[in-house]
Parts: sequence; structure tokens; C-alpha cells
Amino acid sequence: MQFWRSKKVPTIVPGNQAPRIYMDYAAAAPMTAAAKVAMMPYLADVFGNPGGIHTEGVLAKRALEEFRTTVARTLEVQPTGVVFTSGGTESNNLAIVGVVEALRAQGRSYESMKIVSTKLEHPATLRTLDMLAQKGVAITYVEVSTEGAVLTPALVTQLDEKVVLVTLAYVNSEVGVVTDCRAIRRMLDSAEKKYGTRIVLHIDAAQAPLWLPCSLSRIGADLLSLDGGKCGGGKGIGALILKQGVTIEPLLRGGGQEMGLRPGTEPVHLVAAFATALEEAQAHWTTRSQAVTAVRDYAFDRIAICLPQAIINGPRGEKRVANNIHVSIPGLDAEFAVITLDTHGIAASTKSACSSKGGGASTVVLAMTGDEARALSTLRFTFGPDTTTADIDRMLTILAAHIADLPKF
Amino acid sequence: MQFWRSKKVPTIVPGNQAPRIYMDYAAAAPMTAAAKVAMMPYLADVFGNPGGIHTEGVLAKRALEEFRTTVARTLEVQPTGVVFTSGGTESNNLAIVGVVEALRAQGRSYESMKIVSTKLEHPATLRTLDMLAQKGVAITYVEVSTEGAVLTPALVTQLDEKVVLVTLAYVNSEVGVVTDCRAIRRMLDSAEKKYGTRIVLHIDAAQAPLWLPCSLSRIGADLLSLDGGKCGGGKGIGALILKQGVTIEPLLRGGGQEMGLRPGTEPVHLVAAFATALEEAQAHWTTRSQAVTAVRDYAFDRIAICLPQAIINGPRGEKRVANNIHVSIPGLDAEFAVITLDTHGIAASTKSACSSKGGGASTVVLAMTGDEARALSTLRFTFGPDTTTADIDRMLTILAAHIADLPKF
Repeated sequence: MQFWRSKKVPTIVPGNQAPRIYMDYAAAAPMTAAAKVAMMPYLADVFGNPGGIHTEGVLAKRALEEFRTTVARTLEVQPTGVVFTSGGTESNNLAIVGVVEALRAQGRSYESMKIVSTKLEHPATLRTLDMLAQKGVAITYVEVSTEGAVLTPALVTQLDEKVVLVTLAYVNSEVGVVTDCRAIRRMLDSAEKKYGTRIVLHIDAAQAPLWLPCSLSRIGADLLSLDGGKCGGGKGIGALILKQGVTIEPLLRGGGQEMGLRPGTEPVHLVAAFATALEEAQAHWTTRSQAVTAVRDYAFDRIAICLPQAIINGPRGEKRVANNIHVSIPGLDAEFAVITLDTHGIAASTKSACSSKGGGASTVVLAMTGDEARALSTLRFTFGPDTTTADIDRMLTILAAHIADLPKF
Repeated sequence: MQFWRSKKVPTIVPGNQAPRIYMDYAAAAPMTAAAKVAMMPYLADVFGNPGGIHTEGVLAKRALEEFRTTVARTLEVQPTGVVFTSGGTESNNLAIVGVVEALRAQGRSYESMKIVSTKLEHPATLRTLDMLAQKGVAITYVEVSTEGAVLTPALVTQLDEKVVLVTLAYVNSEVGVVTDCRAIRRMLDSAEKKYGTRIVLHIDAAQAPLWLPCSLSRIGADLLSLDGGKCGGGKGIGALILKQGVTIEPLLRGGGQEMGLRPGTEPVHLVAAFATALEEAQAHWTTRSQAVTAVRDYAFDRIAICLPQAIINGPRGEKRVANNIHVSIPGLDAEFAVITLDTHGIAASTKSACSSKGGGASTVVLAMTGDEARALSTLRFTFGPDTTTADIDRMLTILAAHIADLPKF
């Protein structure tokens, strides 16, 4: 698995002898070697527009449909259920707005609809819900446990005849809590029976493919968002996966590409890389997850000793994704700590990259705990397949020394 | 350059000895060598999320902003006026919906707004206008000449106090007519003065960068759509260029990327390729355009001799983009002709790839001429920088032989 560690990366910090230790996989994963190889033929040799009827077009179209089938097989859906998008943000927007607008097209008013979610979701979900709230859709944010898990009794009380959509992350991008989507789908099934309605379950699985099974039926989702940049498939590409029979309206208008759900010339080279990385990620998720869980649990054990003041955010054990460590050290200037780690060759983050503009408290930790000091002092380490216990030791040594140097601690 | 040619691909047409002659540049241009070179470092070595505060993130952000500056310098705008999107379709959607929704946010109703366009636009424009029409926006399609040019007196009569947006292509993707955007901007200036209003001019320039100047002020546009896939910068990336002071609402919601106008992790590798190709395209457009205009005019001369029954669609001379030939041969099965050309090694098309699903008449030619036989028999040849007169001879020989073989002709 040496390919995860590029030979050219160590010289990023001039004069720094040790190789970089990258612990921000949740923000961006490097493209895998296989994804890069898969991409190359479509940069120039097979560059046609899949809409063309000539050989260049037909070859591009054939490749596109083969890679769509790869994704479909990997996630156990029909190829027509795979809609390629520009990434996780677009997939979330398309899913949420798509469900609402499809109902609108059937004559339902915004005011007659209700969407259930949590305050822990990615900004691509939360800001989309804000926009729909302005249009009159009722949005309910279900209470979560102090570990970030959806409180299922709280969810059940929110399910009524107005609910058309429940949108949740499979893996929270900050604290790594894993949602039991199938249990939630069963509750939705009961509510559907009770009210004679249909409730779509949209799951944002951007953080999942390297660590958890993503078969649509195994998750229990009706719509699934994926992102190439988080699973080694490259940025600027993703997919929305649709269960058969789920109807959405497109967000963009144009040519009839992607089953009419997402117009624009299909970027075959990006699809090639993404499909290849997704297949790779899912083929080995069990062993990868087991190996990295051991590293993660070693990290928790060491943190308890080296950083006794650290508070773990999110759950322990199986309810936490394999590669996530998230702690608060109340009073700590978390950005300063991340920068110190960086100057010592370690890449970490304070929270999710999409939320980190302008600093400030972690809205996720605030929603979970209501504790502002805890929300203001978060550190996130998200490991890759190659992260070792030696990397953990090095990171904790540097972090503990940094904290020991601070006058306050 | 052997590296770019994957071992799995070279036998594009098995047994065909002559190299392919590709005449469908308007559908897709191969990535330039420089664009590919520019992309490579950002596939894996500099793979960070530009939102990260560590070295990997900072390097990615720095690259992103440098490439944004490249685009800005090329188009003579402020870097904050460069919003990267997933391509031309998204750029057109963002421009048109963005202007309307920004006015809505200021309290204007859909019903109080009017948009002026033509029936010759790309589906990304036409379908977006359809959607806005459903919401109550008045959409007026200005009459065009039989050559496809906007009839400026017809445009002027449509300008009233309700008009908020005029959206037109710089180069029509089918018949290659070039819009005199500055003349139109001057008419809008007069109307603005007369009515005390503000009219945004959105220009879809997807087909322009290789052949025409794209400086925003030279074009006279307020918003400009660009597409990587049409100018050698790769599919799945594009930009919307904004004149300072023009306000739009985002289409997607999420993190605050791209000045808050287009959320999602920025695909630095795609931006690198696109910015490089765009700069290249614009650096040499004059000489490239002159050279290919000579080839195009040679083609017109030869067509008059070899295919006397062919009717030229669109204008001749400077009002036509350098690389476009578009003819109708009434009674001809155009798809069959394109397939015959393809089996002889020549890639052409019947119309634009985004409109070609399911065959049928060219809506562009129908709108221009009202002649269904002409609209049903269109052939489009769009040249690249390397197309030669020998290529033209070969294409016309094959096409003339094909037509001579048909019982009908």
C-alpha cells in the first residue's frame, strides 16, 4: 500500500527530514495509483463527447457506461441508479432539492412538506435545508446524544404525515459517529405504514467507502451521496445513487445526460478514476477498517496517558468510523496546535474543511454537547490506510510537548 | 508522448491504417499537452483540501488562487470574478438562475422579470429558461436572421422596463455564427438609460476561447460561461466569469468556497488543466483563427464544387467562427452519412452533442430557416488547430462518394 504515500510529498516542507504524516483523510484523500492509471486513457486518447455518434463518442460512451456499471455493481444497484455529479456537495443538493421539487411537480406545496435531519450534518446539507426552510418547507433537527448519535425516540416523535425526507450522514465528517441507517429505515417503514406516506431516506456517505459497506440495500438508503475526493478517486467528481423507483427533479437544466437528472458533458476521465477508487475502497474495506481501528484504539489509549486533559468527542468502538480521532482540550487554541503539528510534519485539522472558514467553534460539538469551551478547542485526526502506531506516537509527542510549552496548561 | 497512449486504447478502429481525422471539436477537444502537464502535480503530490490550514491545504489553496489569477489575467477581470464550476452547463445555469434569484432575494417577483434570448441557444440555456418560464418569468426569444444572427431591431423592440437579463451565445455551437456582443451591450446601455434599469448581459462563450478574444470587457459581457472540455482543458470543469458589481445567488449550497457562489471542495487538478488550456487558447487565438479560417474557406469553396446540392447554414466570413462548417443536404440521412464518414476514419456530427439524443431535426436550423427538410439533414464539421486542407479533401471525397452511392441522389 506504499502508493498512498507519494515519494514526492516529503519535500513539501523544505528542510524537514522526516516524511510528512498526513492525518486529514476526511478532508481529502490522495488519488490511488489505480485511479490515476484508470484516468489516463481518457485525458486525450479517448477524449470524445459521449454524446457523439462517431467512434470517439462511442468509445467514450462505452467507457462511461462500463464505469457506471462498476459503481452499480459495487453498490448493488441498477446502472440507471448511478448519477454522476461534481462531488458530494452537489450530490447532497441534488438529493434534497430533487426530492422536494419532484413532489412540487406533483402538486405538493413547500408548506405541506417536512424534512428531518440533525444539526450535525455537513454544510452542503444544512445550508440546503436553510434554503428550503426559506421557501416554506418545515425542517426539524432531531436531538442527538452527547456522542453525536441520532436519538431514535426523538426521531420517531418527529415522524408525521408531513415528513417526505430524512437526511443524515452515514459517518459524521467531524466526530466520526456512524449512523445505524437500517434501524432508521425500519422506523421510517413503520411511519410510512402508519400514515400511508412515503419517506425518502437520503444518506450522505461521502466519508464511508474506505471504511464501511456502502451497498445501498445494506445501508437501507433510498438516496446515497458519494464523493471522489474522499475515497481516493479525485476531486470534482461524485455520484448520487438512487434506489429504483425514487423520483427526483434535476437541479441543473440542459442536455439529457445522466438519465435526465444531471446535464453536462460527462467527464469520462473523472468517472474512470472515481469508479476505480470506489471499487477498490469497497473491495477491501473490512481488512482496511480492522487494521486502522487497531491504530485508532491505540491512539485513544495513548491519549488517555499522554493528554489526560483531552475529552474524546463522539463514540468509542464500532459506532465510530475506523479512521477518526476527535478530541477537545478546553482552553487550547486548536488552530495554533494544528499549525504547530504542521511545522513538525503532521497534517491534522480542527474540524471539517468545509466548515473551517473563519475559525470559530465546531457547530457539531456544540450541537452534541452544548459546551462552548469544548466546541472551541477541537482537534480532528483522520487516518489513512497506512497510518501506523509510530505515526500516532510521533503526533502525540509533538502535541503533548506543544501543550506543555503553553503557559496556560 | 507515448505515455499518454494507453496500451488498451490505440486500436480505436481495428485494421484502419490512416490516422483518424477528428472534426468534432465543438463537441469535445482533446486536452492539450500543457494542460495535462499542469494537472499532474495535483493528482497526488499536492492533493490537499484547499480548506485545510496545514501545508497540504495551503499548497492546494495557493495553487488554486494562482490558477484563478491566470484565468483572471487571461480574461482581464478581478480574480474574485472567476468562479470555477463543473463546466459550461453549470455555468449557464448558475448565470441565469443566479441573476433571477439575486433579484428575488431583493424582493422582486418572478412575474416582474423578463429575459431575452434566442431559440438558437444551447439546451443548458433553453431548458433553464423553460424552468424559469414555469415559475412566471417572461421569456422572449428574439428573431434571428436566416444566418442565425440576432436581429438587433427585433432585440431593441423587446427591451422594456421588465428586462433583467439578456442571454446569448458568443459562438453558436451548431452553425458557428458569432454574436456582436458589444453592439448588443450598447443597446442594453441605451435601454438601461431609457428605463432607469439594469440589464445583465450573459454570454455563453463555451465555443470561443480557441478562436476569438474572450476578455470580458472586449466582449462587453457582464457574465461569461466557459467550459474546459471545449478548449483543451478537460471535461468536468468550467467557469462563470463575473464583472465587478454583478450580483448572483449560488445554485448549490454548502461550504463557502468560490466567494460563496459555488460550494464544494475545489478540484485543483481540474482547475490547473483548465486555466492552462484557457491561457494557451487565448494567447494564440489570432494566428490559430487565421490559419483555420483559411482551411474553412477552402472547405466552402470545395463544397460548392463537390457537393453542389449542399446548403450552407450560418454566415460566411468574419461573422462565422473559424473552425465551423455546417451544411444541409435536403433529403440526406445525416446520421447515416456521419456513420459512413466514421467508418472511413472521419469524426463529424449532425448537430451539437448535447442536442443529439434521439436524432430529429436541428432546432437551431429550424429556428433560423423554418425549413424542416434543411433542419433534418444537417452535417457539422468543427475543425481543430491541426486540421488541414488535405483532411478537407479526404472528407469531401468520402462524403461525395457516399452521396453518389445513395439511390435517392
